[in-house]
Amino acid sequence: MKYKEIATFIRNKIIDGDWFYGMKMPSHRSLANQFEVNRVTILKSIEVLEAEGFIYTKKGSGTYVNDYLDENYILNKWSEMMDWSFRSRSEYTVQLINKLETDTAYIHISKGELGKELIPHRELKQAMLNVSDYIGDLSFGYNNGYGYMKLRELIAKRLNEAGFDITKDNVLITSGALHAIQLLVTGFLSQNTVVFSNTPSYIDSTHVFNYLNMSKVKISYNSLSQFQHVINKYPSYKEKALYIEPSFNNPTGQSISQKNREDIMHFSKIHNIPIIEDDIYRDIWFETAPLLPIKALDSNGNVIHISSFSKSIAPAIRIGWLIASEKVIEQLADIRMQIDYGSSILSQMVVYELLKTGSYDQHVQSLRGKLKDKRDFMLSILNELFSKIAQWDIPKGGFFIWVTFNENINIKKLFSELINKEKILLNPGFIYGSEANTIRLSYAFENKENIEYALQKIWEYIYSEYKHNEFFKNQLNK
Amino acid sequence: MKYKEIATFIRNKIIDGDWFYGMKMPSHRSLANQFEVNRVTILKSIEVLEAEGFIYTKKGSGTYVNDYLDENYILNKWSEMMDWSFRSRSEYTVQLINKLETDTAYIHISKGELGKELIPHRELKQAMLNVSDYIGDLSFGYNNGYGYMKLRELIAKRLNEAGFDITKDNVLITSGALHAIQLLVTGFLSQNTVVFSNTPSYIDSTHVFNYLNMSKVKISYNSLSQFQHVINKYPSYKEKALYIEPSFNNPTGQSISQKNREDIMHFSKIHNIPIIEDDIYRDIWFETAPLLPIKALDSNGNVIHISSFSKSIAPAIRIGWLIASEKVIEQLADIRMQIDYGSSILSQMVVYELLKTGSYDQHVQSLRGKLKDKRDFMLSILNELFSKIAQWDIPKGGFFIWVTFNENINIKKLFSELINKEKILLNPGFIYGSEANTIRLSYAFENKENIEYALQKIWEYIYSEYKHNEFFKNQLNK
Repeated sequence: MKYKEIATFIRNKIIDGDWFYGMKMPSHRSLANQFEVNRVTILKSIEVLEAEGFIYTKKGSGTYVNDYLDENYILNKWSEMMDWSFRSRSEYTVQLINKLETDTAYIHISKGELGKELIPHRELKQAMLNVSDYIGDLSFGYNNGYGYMKLRELIAKRLNEAGFDITKDNVLITSGALHAIQLLVTGFLSQNTVVFSNTPSYIDSTHVFNYLNMSKVKISYNSLSQFQHVINKYPSYKEKALYIEPSFNNPTGQSISQKNREDIMHFSKIHNIPIIEDDIYRDIWFETAPLLPIKALDSNGNVIHISSFSKSIAPAIRIGWLIASEKVIEQLADIRMQIDYGSSILSQMVVYELLKTGSYDQHVQSLRGKLKDKRDFMLSILNELFSKIAQWDIPKGGFFIWVTFNENINIKKLFSELINKEKILLNPGFIYGSEANTIRLSYAFENKENIEYALQKIWEYIYSEYKHNEFFKNQLNK
Repeated sequence: MKYKEIATFIRNKIIDGDWFYGMKMPSHRSLANQFEVNRVTILKSIEVLEAEGFIYTKKGSGTYVNDYLDENYILNKWSEMMDWSFRSRSEYTVQLINKLETDTAYIHISKGELGKELIPHRELKQAMLNVSDYIGDLSFGYNNGYGYMKLRELIAKRLNEAGFDITKDNVLITSGALHAIQLLVTGFLSQNTVVFSNTPSYIDSTHVFNYLNMSKVKISYNSLSQFQHVINKYPSYKEKALYIEPSFNNPTGQSISQKNREDIMHFSKIHNIPIIEDDIYRDIWFETAPLLPIKALDSNGNVIHISSFSKSIAPAIRIGWLIASEKVIEQLADIRMQIDYGSSILSQMVVYELLKTGSYDQHVQSLRGKLKDKRDFMLSILNELFSKIAQWDIPKGGFFIWVTFNENINIKKLFSELINKEKILLNPGFIYGSEANTIRLSYAFENKENIEYALQKIWEYIYSEYKHNEFFKNQLNK
């Protein structure tokens, strides 16, 4: 076998996704054995692939699979354009997760959505039947970018009961929370804004603030009380904005204290720094309801409040909302008329029916109990298997348990090997901006059986990989 | 009454929208009479409003209402940001049309959507019932950005029957056609692309290509055969793209000949200029089906084909599609995962049911007959009232009749006066990039009674306004 054929074989492995970013390649010796050639031939193949950018060599460590992007294969003009368009693609790991997340052959132990048994199918069906009853009365035209008026009224009413002081004119319906943020970025933030955001955060796995000349400054979720000091480091003439998740942060499950909420609001007011408050997990609480949103403390419209029904009903419904001053809502509605003419009326009407009939509230109440039960189950398995080698907090809401390993486990390799060998999809902490040794686990998606199976497999992989490691052994024998 | 109070009175007229952009204000003399002050006081009020940008004076012509934007009233940081965000607002006239388009108190004689009686309500209801039957089987999760697989398969199958050679992997579901273009702009076009587009065009009433440093070059719809010469004027190193509406152009109703289609494809291939083909009115034909799309002539993936169900089912469904090479679709799906996680599954499933059961095809066939009948009705009224003072072609498909007046009628004033006095909303040709004396009429939205009423009112307004004009009188007496 010639070096070119071997290079092709390896290249296809990478293109097909069998070999992943960060994966260590077999040694030159073992490749030589496998292909029945001498090591010089292998070295020539490696050189080719390295020049092509498919792999890279770490001195004294070995050869690794590189961040492979399809852009290497240019087919036509549109594909060429990928390279110089001003919206960059997701990181390869995130792309891969997005791709595998809809593959039912995998166990999705980190997935940020409700499992099928938690989706309110019966209620959705009834809502659809209700809507179909008056479908003949609807004009089905382009709306004005604001969203279905009855839904906006109902959302305003519900939020007023939760401490807001708004009308439907402060409500814009969006296609989910990320879409609301996207609208703000393209509609309001200047190219040179410095966006401060809590980290770790799901927002770090997106490119939503990596736009043109915007710069992003991460503030550790645990030290948000210090955020004044971080922001003060930047010149006052710089335009700034703050992105914040007040309740049940994705991925850590933490919330922001009342004092920190007040401080943030106060500081935002004094320095005129607008706040994007993303409160998407607000309804998913277990023992006590979360603190009031920062928006409820807002007297001058500095806070834009964002949420959605993706976590409490279903993501595929694509209905979220954005609360802001009338002027801002008017501007965003105009932008939507330029972008997509608003969200699907069918989805909006179905959600309206769920809210109006009270079936949403009943569903969410029952959902809390079921999720709490699954959380407790996952915690019990974690305690049983991982208590000596990892740490985590008990989340009081949301979908996730954030696990930090004591031992310096190679998370990229863990991620790749679980995909390759076990068909388990595990979201590594680094995609959320965590530099530590972390993973995000979700009790929302899989059933108990699969949760137990996946955690057992993760444990087995770690044990077999690190059992000869002294530190690891010490941990286990503590 | 002091000059400040008068200024406030006029300012409120403009803010409230009673006085519109381009409207000529009453003379100083008549204002002086109205407010019972001398002309010096009126001049001082005018000075104030001019300094504020609410009005402007044309030498030797009078005082006019300016393009008023709410940004003059800054409430808080988010509103301030409007001024320096990098997405500009729609033109004031377009904003006003968007705002009034959902106001049922108006007669919408230009509206680009099906009237309520043409919406397939019965079919939509049945499709919803079908979907509700298997709703329990659905996971309702985040999809992977591509769209509902069964719908993509069905769209591919249908397009293959119309001359394409694609699979579901070439299909991306979007929230309408404009949204598809938006995705291409943010996902592919570089900041410095020169976008060539046919004009007049509805695309000129949007800002979709006025993005960052992109420049836009308009090519008259009638001289598309000359587009090589236009494009050749730009240096070859400049990135270029071509936007084109091959069938039943909005607003003129024209289509591109077979020869021009072939020439455009040929030239695009040789010079590697990607084409965005927007074929949204394709299904709305009267005597004969339109020519094959340019995409059907495409052998190297240079053409991206876009369409939607907004014109044949209903805009509020928000379902369109984009056909491109697999690599491009993959990239765009990734971008959607960054923007909004795809379109509503409910809408996608309802459209799928409409297609699968054949009820879409039956509906469209009957729709063609009904629209043709309304087109003929509108033509008969036009012939009766306007044949001496205006010209138009008979559209062979689409929704619109494009009317060009012989006399130099003030279209802005016509637009404003019809809104103010008659509650008739008429889209002026200038919002579509037309410099001529044009309006867009639609036979799709209003019923025959309202079509006749609106055209009669337009005629009466024009007659009373221009009856003393010599040229106008000559026309009438021809």
